[in-house]
Amino acid sequence: MTKITSLVTGGAGFIGSHVVKHCLALGHEVIVLDDLSGGFEDHIPAGAVFVQGSVSDENLVTSLFEEYRFDYVYHLAAYAAEGLSHFIRRFNYNNNLIGSINLINESIKHKVKCFVFTSSIAVYGAGQLPMREEMTPMPEDPYGVSKYAVELDLKAAHEMFGLNYVVFRPHNVYGENQNIGDKYRNVIGIFMNQIMQQQPLTIFGDGEQTRAFSYIDDVAIPITNSVNIPAAYNQVFNIGADKPYTVNELVKVVGDCFGVTPDVKHLQARNEVMHAYSDHTKAHRVFGEGSGVNLLDGIKRMAAWAAKVGARKSKEFGNIEIYEKLPQGWEKKPQPETIPA
Amino acid sequence: MTKITSLVTGGAGFIGSHVVKHCLALGHEVIVLDDLSGGFEDHIPAGAVFVQGSVSDENLVTSLFEEYRFDYVYHLAAYAAEGLSHFIRRFNYNNNLIGSINLINESIKHKVKCFVFTSSIAVYGAGQLPMREEMTPMPEDPYGVSKYAVELDLKAAHEMFGLNYVVFRPHNVYGENQNIGDKYRNVIGIFMNQIMQQQPLTIFGDGEQTRAFSYIDDVAIPITNSVNIPAAYNQVFNIGADKPYTVNELVKVVGDCFGVTPDVKHLQARNEVMHAYSDHTKAHRVFGEGSGVNLLDGIKRMAAWAAKVGARKSKEFGNIEIYEKLPQGWEKKPQPETIPA
Repeated sequence: MTKITSLVTGGAGFIGSHVVKHCLALGHEVIVLDDLSGGFEDHIPAGAVFVQGSVSDENLVTSLFEEYRFDYVYHLAAYAAEGLSHFIRRFNYNNNLIGSINLINESIKHKVKCFVFTSSIAVYGAGQLPMREEMTPMPEDPYGVSKYAVELDLKAAHEMFGLNYVVFRPHNVYGENQNIGDKYRNVIGIFMNQIMQQQPLTIFGDGEQTRAFSYIDDVAIPITNSVNIPAAYNQVFNIGADKPYTVNELVKVVGDCFGVTPDVKHLQARNEVMHAYSDHTKAHRVFGEGSGVNLLDGIKRMAAWAAKVGARKSKEFGNIEIYEKLPQGWEKKPQPETIPA
Repeated sequence: MTKITSLVTGGAGFIGSHVVKHCLALGHEVIVLDDLSGGFEDHIPAGAVFVQGSVSDENLVTSLFEEYRFDYVYHLAAYAAEGLSHFIRRFNYNNNLIGSINLINESIKHKVKCFVFTSSIAVYGAGQLPMREEMTPMPEDPYGVSKYAVELDLKAAHEMFGLNYVVFRPHNVYGENQNIGDKYRNVIGIFMNQIMQQQPLTIFGDGEQTRAFSYIDDVAIPITNSVNIPAAYNQVFNIGADKPYTVNELVKVVGDCFGVTPDVKHLQARNEVMHAYSDHTKAHRVFGEGSGVNLLDGIKRMAAWAAKVGARKSKEFGNIEIYEKLPQGWEKKPQPETIPA
């Protein structure tokens, strides 16, 4: 029997490294394409072939598809800083849209059997809750626009060329291998990094915004398995946890896991959706129920991992295109003012 | 009084050259940015400053905004071959999306007063008729996806940075200065070019597909005036003619204008929307009624111009990315087979 060959873009990143692990467990030969802008080579599970480079490098993508005969493409590479995307429009579309198009083009030409794409709940915008797949997306920032454009392009590629796809819209994922040094996204990782450096936890606004933080297994496992589930083909799925928590509740849970009562520094509220949670009925029907790991248990696991690997130095994003209205703390020189809670 | 300065991208192109003419008539200083991929330098009205280059050239765009202080940006540059966009995905998004983003970035930074963008009815997809602005776009090809992504990005830029915009969705525009040598789009121009070369008129499928062909004045004049109409700001408008005609009816009208009964060659139907017409109530309310030029009169005017300038040699698009399913006649070597009508 011929071995299944899968390309995992962003396979050195957070969700990607878990997908690689699960693909290897399924017996796939796995090629990882990652530019290490947000990922780490030592997160790539042993047994995968690593190619360092970007999905936006057209020639590299073309040559990879010529060298390997991919059965499946799992496209997880992205610069997923939604809030920052207003200020790095061109970078966002180059990375998240043009990079995806390079892969879609080659997947059409080489007749890939299924193209699995991690989109985002950012496509919904600030609509009704819970977010449901049948709602009409109305993204409100360049990151969400780029993700939705790829979803629409995949649908067009399916209609015209028969390319099968599965689209996932994960919801605030956390867990082991997350880049806790990324100051622009992923509040749980940011909190852990701050606690381990004895810094106060920074919260935009009053902390009463809610998100349904999702443990990595509830996301990476269905993504991996989807290529083997015909009912998933050419469908869009919300994926992740059901229950929303406030950021203030999160402070307590993360603090407890590290045995501390953290200081909190409130920054000016930024332009973001106040509440967000998704309906996962469709995903449960097709992929089964989730791992059952609740927020406390998931954060415990991640905290144990984070304590082991230690704090990470935050990298500044070096190429801000627009400085006007850039949120506090995202400037090159962070400003120390706090807002009374 | 300081002179108003306007940038017109695609100002050597069809709609763009008319917008330049009307801007000059309003007393604007006009800078034209055009890469002449589809436009012609001799279509640029005297009095405008011409800069040859592409909107996708980030450095050029940046330097233009530094050199001039644009009050208004009319962004008409695009590679608008909707049907071909399936086969030139990367080119399409680079040209139509990244190019637009370069302009939006600079317009935010330099506080442009209004950004006028020509989108397309391609954003609607094959939905209900007539197409109305309040319908939810559902584009079905990469061209429509790129246009809709720009619309959404402009909305996000307005919400975040206060950039004012006006979005137009024109409908199958025809008239003087159209590139009748473009074999991939604009059936009226294609027919005229074929008649002048004693070639049969090529029709995809049975010719019963309908479009509301729109005379240039009904599109270029409202586009130009929109910057002076506050009620138009941050709104989306369908624009063009109301009455749909079949392609077969068009054959007769164009033939009559040239005094011939043209031969017709039916090609294999391509993947396209069968019927399309838009509701223009909103545009009429804000911009007034149109020019009143009907199809016969408009085609007469265009035919008189075309007869004067003569046939144009069709340029092949040199950089097809996917050859699979490319419509008949669009291959490098056109195949001579016809399908019985």
